[in-house]
Amino acid sequence: MERYTDDSLALHTDAYQINMVETYWHDNIHNKRAVFELYFRKLPFGNGFGVFAGLERIIEYVKAFHFTNSDLEYLREEYGYEEEFLAFLKELRFTGTIRSMKEGELVFGNEAILQVESTLAEAQLIETALLNIVNYQTLIATKAARIKRVIGDEPALEFGTRRAQEMDAAIWGTRAAFIGGFEATSNLRAGKKFGIPVSGTHAHSMVQTYKSDYVAMKKYAESCVRRKNKVFLPLVDTYNTLKSGVPAAIKVAKEYEGKLEFSGIRLDSGDMAYLSIKARKMLDEAGFTNTKIVASNDLDEYTILNLKAQGAKIDIWGIGTKLITAFEQPALGAVYKLVAIEDENGNMADTIKISGNPEKVTTPGLKKVYRILNRENNRAEGDYIVLATENPEKEKKIKMFHPTHTFINKLVTNFEARNLHHPIFVDGKLVYELPGIIEIQNNVKANMEMLWDEYKRSLNPEEYPVDLSKKCWDNKMREIEKVMQSVEEMK
Amino acid sequence: MERYTDDSLALHTDAYQINMVETYWHDNIHNKRAVFELYFRKLPFGNGFGVFAGLERIIEYVKAFHFTNSDLEYLREEYGYEEEFLAFLKELRFTGTIRSMKEGELVFGNEAILQVESTLAEAQLIETALLNIVNYQTLIATKAARIKRVIGDEPALEFGTRRAQEMDAAIWGTRAAFIGGFEATSNLRAGKKFGIPVSGTHAHSMVQTYKSDYVAMKKYAESCVRRKNKVFLPLVDTYNTLKSGVPAAIKVAKEYEGKLEFSGIRLDSGDMAYLSIKARKMLDEAGFTNTKIVASNDLDEYTILNLKAQGAKIDIWGIGTKLITAFEQPALGAVYKLVAIEDENGNMADTIKISGNPEKVTTPGLKKVYRILNRENNRAEGDYIVLATENPEKEKKIKMFHPTHTFINKLVTNFEARNLHHPIFVDGKLVYELPGIIEIQNNVKANMEMLWDEYKRSLNPEEYPVDLSKKCWDNKMREIEKVMQSVEEMK
Repeated sequence: MERYTDDSLALHTDAYQINMVETYWHDNIHNKRAVFELYFRKLPFGNGFGVFAGLERIIEYVKAFHFTNSDLEYLREEYGYEEEFLAFLKELRFTGTIRSMKEGELVFGNEAILQVESTLAEAQLIETALLNIVNYQTLIATKAARIKRVIGDEPALEFGTRRAQEMDAAIWGTRAAFIGGFEATSNLRAGKKFGIPVSGTHAHSMVQTYKSDYVAMKKYAESCVRRKNKVFLPLVDTYNTLKSGVPAAIKVAKEYEGKLEFSGIRLDSGDMAYLSIKARKMLDEAGFTNTKIVASNDLDEYTILNLKAQGAKIDIWGIGTKLITAFEQPALGAVYKLVAIEDENGNMADTIKISGNPEKVTTPGLKKVYRILNRENNRAEGDYIVLATENPEKEKKIKMFHPTHTFINKLVTNFEARNLHHPIFVDGKLVYELPGIIEIQNNVKANMEMLWDEYKRSLNPEEYPVDLSKKCWDNKMREIEKVMQSVEEMK
Repeated sequence: MERYTDDSLALHTDAYQINMVETYWHDNIHNKRAVFELYFRKLPFGNGFGVFAGLERIIEYVKAFHFTNSDLEYLREEYGYEEEFLAFLKELRFTGTIRSMKEGELVFGNEAILQVESTLAEAQLIETALLNIVNYQTLIATKAARIKRVIGDEPALEFGTRRAQEMDAAIWGTRAAFIGGFEATSNLRAGKKFGIPVSGTHAHSMVQTYKSDYVAMKKYAESCVRRKNKVFLPLVDTYNTLKSGVPAAIKVAKEYEGKLEFSGIRLDSGDMAYLSIKARKMLDEAGFTNTKIVASNDLDEYTILNLKAQGAKIDIWGIGTKLITAFEQPALGAVYKLVAIEDENGNMADTIKISGNPEKVTTPGLKKVYRILNRENNRAEGDYIVLATENPEKEKKIKMFHPTHTFINKLVTNFEARNLHHPIFVDGKLVYELPGIIEIQNNVKANMEMLWDEYKRSLNPEEYPVDLSKKCWDNKMREIEKVMQSVEEMK
């Protein structure tokens, strides 16, 4: 089989997308206007909120979207598509509109994170990549925010590159972790590409190389002296933490007093609670009371909570595998569903998907998603999904009710309705300027302020309301009825 | 903060690697010869064997390894490194030797998949990327082989791109799945890049677009007629599988009889056991007894075993999330450990890492890994790790014993000792020609033949022996003793 040496992201899609586009193209409906919504049904980790990430890479991808000559050559070989269809693909660019939440927005189940309104062909072709990006990055940003909630104000470092699911996950994952509240990464490429602070000491192999904690740390101190920040923070658990590692660190720190900043030590194995308490005592007794203890070794929100409960003297947390792979639940199930399409008369008509699994039934129509903020306390009452024709910003009171258990409802007044969607691309043109990574991280912190603590606790949080307006709910019921009827007629 | 627009993989490493290299460079030991071994300690998923994947990308990465000007600019900004050190990095290329198992080799815990013998600086700088690649790809190849064992001869399709952990995972993961025995992927980019067969039908959105199973399938049939392979295999669960989807598929297939190949239907939701049995009956009664039923919906080895036990009539299995993320255990813990380093006299000296966690103690020295095959039945007796100076190929009998529970031992005669390591790079030069993807997949099948069934079952397999030679074991004990003594002296 022939091998192509170049690579392009336009083919980063499922084969069925091209199959469908070919069908549409032949039927001459490929340019019909269509609206797709991207959302997940269920929050991961039993968490009470999600943190959206992925928009930066989506923008990169959509801007660059086009089929290269070798992509077309491959499709010709693989499927034997007609030349006219390939010529159509060759010219294809994204010419539609994308509305999206900002990165760092808090997001919940069954509300559109992002809407694509474009030709049917374009919207289908970008589906797979959009899901691939949002599913992973949002998962990690959410996990990071969840871990950071347990850690509190102490610094959290992302150390997972070697266990990440290949290279993209390492760098986009660590960016998502930063968005979720982490302070730094160990990955230099991510540092360069995204401007995230980087952090790192030395490995066990350095101590093995010098065959002695003391010699290795002394050599390491020599290089710390030459660095901009003069930080000396050696790893102490290569041979024996308390008998060799910590004493050597103290000895070297004393020898270099004034020449470098002995900021602490790192523990990477053993009983973290015991070792950190003992090490803290040794450091304090040597007069290094300002030093920090960094711990890393398969940590996550559960082990951290546990270590804190045991009184472990850990000041900085290095998190690897459990964060970068979202070990506890390594996939978010976001989907991308057609909610409206142009009819024969050029009007937009709502569409629905019915399923044997009730939670898979879609909510039809072009919609808007509002966060309803109580003006008295500036806390969120819930999210409110309306048809595009509605405008809750102008309403004085709204009735919010649970979309399945409709008897659960409340009347809300004195609120601000904040539209969560922002135009990103309009008619193919990028109209959105991405905020810097620090600004995105700060937005997450501000957004969290608006959420009651009940939704933020890591164990059994309350369910945040994501409700449909009456019109939106009625519309859904009507569409379900229509489909049921047409299925009846089929028999 | 400044943003760099270009991207390079040389910085795809942990910050501590550069820290250490700078220390070594200043101490003028960066060119010391060092040997690192890459291995994992424990097989994933409780599986009895692993399948190695990742070498292709490692070769790409190592061949291209160099720091770009903007990488150096970033390091200068971030750390304020001296210009001479940056000049050293600028010229740095991989000039060492890599010995590795072939992709598709069966691999077990605590044996080197890959050895890097090079300068200390080079070996450290490539560590993180090598682990990142091997950890993920080997995990997925192993999961795929495990799932394929349960599926048997029926085709298995990799459908996970949208749930993969970002883009690299989607394509390298699906390649690893193919190595592990899968027949095809839905990802066109992977199809183009690696020559893997691609597979795909249409989505629910197509049925929604035409608002009718029948109309959508008819339109779809029109495009199938124009394809090379004429395959018609519609998705039947958009509105109602048995009342609408399957009847529509049958109706369209009859209308197009002779013009296309009605190869089957795809089910993507609902009760797979029930629906597949009912759908099979409908297809058979319509005369389409040769059609296949493709199922997909959160499947893995456990649900597949269950569906088979229920008598589900599923012929082809589409596997998404659970495979591409290795959902059950989404990380492999491979490590990269220094086992020998040049001493002051230019001789290679063994090194060891002791740890509070006993399983983290390394096995010192440059070693070789042999698979011991019984000539009578051509089955593997176990793997046998020896010092590089030993040659079991020339021995008549060997004593294999458990490296922890040494009383478990056996004497093996009439064996073939097969060296599992092959030279990939020698003195920086690529000397290995990568086999094609089909050949790698076939090698896995052949390798599996050599393994007793006891190691291959998915539940509670026997532990495959990975033993040390007497010399190798004695050497390890000696090195442990030496370190214990030096720690004593430190006190």
